Amino acid sequence: MSLKTLSSQMLPAIESELQKQVARLDQSRTAIYHEMLTYHMGWTGQGAGPEATGKRIRPLMVLLCTAAAGGSDGIDPHNWQPALPAAASVELVHNFSLAHDDIQDNSEKRRGRPTLWTKWGIPQSINAGDGLFVLSNLAVTDLAESYPAEIALRAARVLHETCLNLTRGQYMDISYEKRPDLNEEDYWPMISGKTAALLAGCCQMGAILGGAERQAEAAYRDFGLALGLAFQVQDDILGIWGDEALTGKSAASDLLEGKKSLPVLYGLGKNGPFAERWKSGPITSTDVEVVAKMLADEGAGGYAHDKSREWTDKALDSLAKAEPKGEAGAALSELADKLLGRKA
Amino acid sequence: MSLKTLSSQMLPAIESELQKQVARLDQSRTAIYHEMLTYHMGWTGQGAGPEATGKRIRPLMVLLCTAAAGGSDGIDPHNWQPALPAAASVELVHNFSLAHDDIQDNSEKRRGRPTLWTKWGIPQSINAGDGLFVLSNLAVTDLAESYPAEIALRAARVLHETCLNLTRGQYMDISYEKRPDLNEEDYWPMISGKTAALLAGCCQMGAILGGAERQAEAAYRDFGLALGLAFQVQDDILGIWGDEALTGKSAASDLLEGKKSLPVLYGLGKNGPFAERWKSGPITSTDVEVVAKMLADEGAGGYAHDKSREWTDKALDSLAKAEPKGEAGAALSELADKLLGRKA
Repeated sequence: MSLKTLSSQMLPAIESELQKQVARLDQSRTAIYHEMLTYHMGWTGQGAGPEATGKRIRPLMVLLCTAAAGGSDGIDPHNWQPALPAAASVELVHNFSLAHDDIQDNSEKRRGRPTLWTKWGIPQSINAGDGLFVLSNLAVTDLAESYPAEIALRAARVLHETCLNLTRGQYMDISYEKRPDLNEEDYWPMISGKTAALLAGCCQMGAILGGAERQAEAAYRDFGLALGLAFQVQDDILGIWGDEALTGKSAASDLLEGKKSLPVLYGLGKNGPFAERWKSGPITSTDVEVVAKMLADEGAGGYAHDKSREWTDKALDSLAKAEPKGEAGAALSELADKLLGRKA
Repeated sequence: MSLKTLSSQMLPAIESELQKQVARLDQSRTAIYHEMLTYHMGWTGQGAGPEATGKRIRPLMVLLCTAAAGGSDGIDPHNWQPALPAAASVELVHNFSLAHDDIQDNSEKRRGRPTLWTKWGIPQSINAGDGLFVLSNLAVTDLAESYPAEIALRAARVLHETCLNLTRGQYMDISYEKRPDLNEEDYWPMISGKTAALLAGCCQMGAILGGAERQAEAAYRDFGLALGLAFQVQDDILGIWGDEALTGKSAASDLLEGKKSLPVLYGLGKNGPFAERWKSGPITSTDVEVVAKMLADEGAGGYAHDKSREWTDKALDSLAKAEPKGEAGAALSELADKLLGRKA
C-alpha cells in the first residue's frame, strides 16, 4: 500500500480528531473564541479548505511511525487509530506556535489568508494561541483511553519537552533579529528548536505508541530531527534561489526580509562582497537578484546543498536503524523521500 | 500546628521546587530567556524578593489539600512533599497567565515592578509566557516519580482542564471591554474562568494526590471554586470602596479603569444615575469619589457583600463536606478564613 493510499485513510481521520478536540470550545459563551480556532485551523471563514489547513505532515508522521513501529500490516487501521489523539496534539502545537509566531513576526498573511491577529486583534490572538496549546495538552491525555497510563504519560512528556525546545528556538529566532554577530554555530540550535524538534517529537511519539524498543525509539527520533534539519536547509535554499511557482513565495524573499538563514550566515562568515553589501543596509527588490548571485558565487548555495545532503543521509540512516515495518514503513520512507527530494 | 508553622515549611519547599522547574532553561544559549522567567517569578532583577514573588497562595493550597486529604498528621512532610511538582505547576500556570495578561491589558507594572513586555518587548514576552506554560506541563508529569502513572495523569488532566477554563475566562474578559450590553449573568462565567478555576484546580489536584475519595475530591474542588468567587467579589468591592493602605492600590481605581466588576454590572442593571454617568464617558479622578458614592447609594456595595457572603458560606460548607483531616485540615480552614475575612 502506497503513501497515497495510507494518507487517504489517515488524513480524514486526523481532521476529524482535530475537530473533536477543538469542539471543546464550541459553547455559546465562547462561540467567537471557537470561531477563531476553526478559522486558524483552516476549516471556516474566507479561504477555508485544503489550502488553508496545510498538509498535516506532522500528524501524518505520528501515525505512520506508530504503524511502522507497531505492526507489519499497515492495512489494519487498528494499528494507528488509537494514536489519533497524539497526532492531533502535535498539529495543535504546530498551530499554536504559528498563531503566536504571526504576532511576534508581525505577519499579516498565513497561507494566503489574513492572520488571526489582523482579524481579531493581538490580545484575543495571544489567548487563541494559548487555547490551541491547552487543547494539545488535553488531546495527549486522551491517549489514556487506549494505552496504559505509563505510555500516555511518556508520550505527553515527549510532547512537553518538544514544546520547551520550540520556545527555546523561538527565543533564539527573535533575539537573532537584533544581533549583527551571528554565525553558523548560532544557526543549528535555533533551527533544531524551531523546525526539527517538532518532527523529532512526532516520530518519537509514534514510536512509543507503536511499542518500539528504546533503541528503535531513539532512531525514530533521530530520523525526525535530521529530516527536519534537512528540510529547513532546503527551505533556506528555496528562500533565496528557489522556484517561485513551486514554493508559492517569490525567490529571494528571504533576502528582502533580512532572514538570517544558513546561506546568509555562511556568506557573512566569508566576509566578502556579500557580507559588505548585507551590512550596508536592507536589500531591496532592485538589487536582490545581484545579491543572490553574489551569495551563490561565494559558494553559499553549494555549501547549503552539502549540508542538506548530510542531514538527508543521516535521516535515511536513522530510518534504516529504526527498521520500520510493513506497508507503513514503506510509506514512511516514501514520505521522507518526498520531503527530502524537493526541487531545490 | 498552625497555618503559620505549616506555611513556614511549605513555602521554602515550593520556592525551591519552582526554581528547579525553571532551571530547565538555565543554559548558555537561553540565558536571557531564563533571566526573563526568574525576573517574572520575582527572584532576580530590580525589586526581587517576597514582594515580587506574590504570596504563592495557589501552590500552598495544593499542598494543604494534599496533606488534609491524605493523612491526619500534618507534621509529617512526607504527606505533602511528593505533591511539590503539582504545587509548582499551578504557580507556573498562574505566572504564565499573568505574563500574557500584562501584554493583553497593556499593563506596565506588576507588583510594583516593570512588566516583562516593557523590559523585553512583546514578542519575547509572549514566548516567555509560553515557556512558563510548558514548564507547568513538565512539572505536572514529574508527579510520576512519586505517584502511580494513573494518578499523575489524573492530576495533569485537571491542570489542563483548568487552563482551558482560564483561556475561556480570558476570552470573555477581553471581549467584554468593548461590549456595552453586559449584565450580571455575564460576570459569573468570566470570573469563574479567570479567578476561581485555578483555585478549584489547586484544591482538586491536592485532593487527588492526597488520595481522597471521588466525593471528597468533588467537595475540595467546590471549596476552591467558591473560595475563588468569594475572593474575587471581595476584590471587586475593595477596587471601588477599598482601603488603599490595605490593598496597595488606590480605592476606586477599578472605576477609573472602567472595569466591569460585579458592583458596576449591578449598577448598570439598575439603570439609575450611576448607569447614566457610566455611559456618558470615562470616569476621572475628579469625579470618582462622587460616582463611587452614587453606586453605593444604589445598593451595589450591599449587593456585592451579600454575594460574597453567599460564596463564603458555600466554600465553608464544601470544606466541611471534604472533611479535611488533622493539622493540615485546620490550617486549610485557617487559610480560608484569612482569605475570606479580608477587611472590605
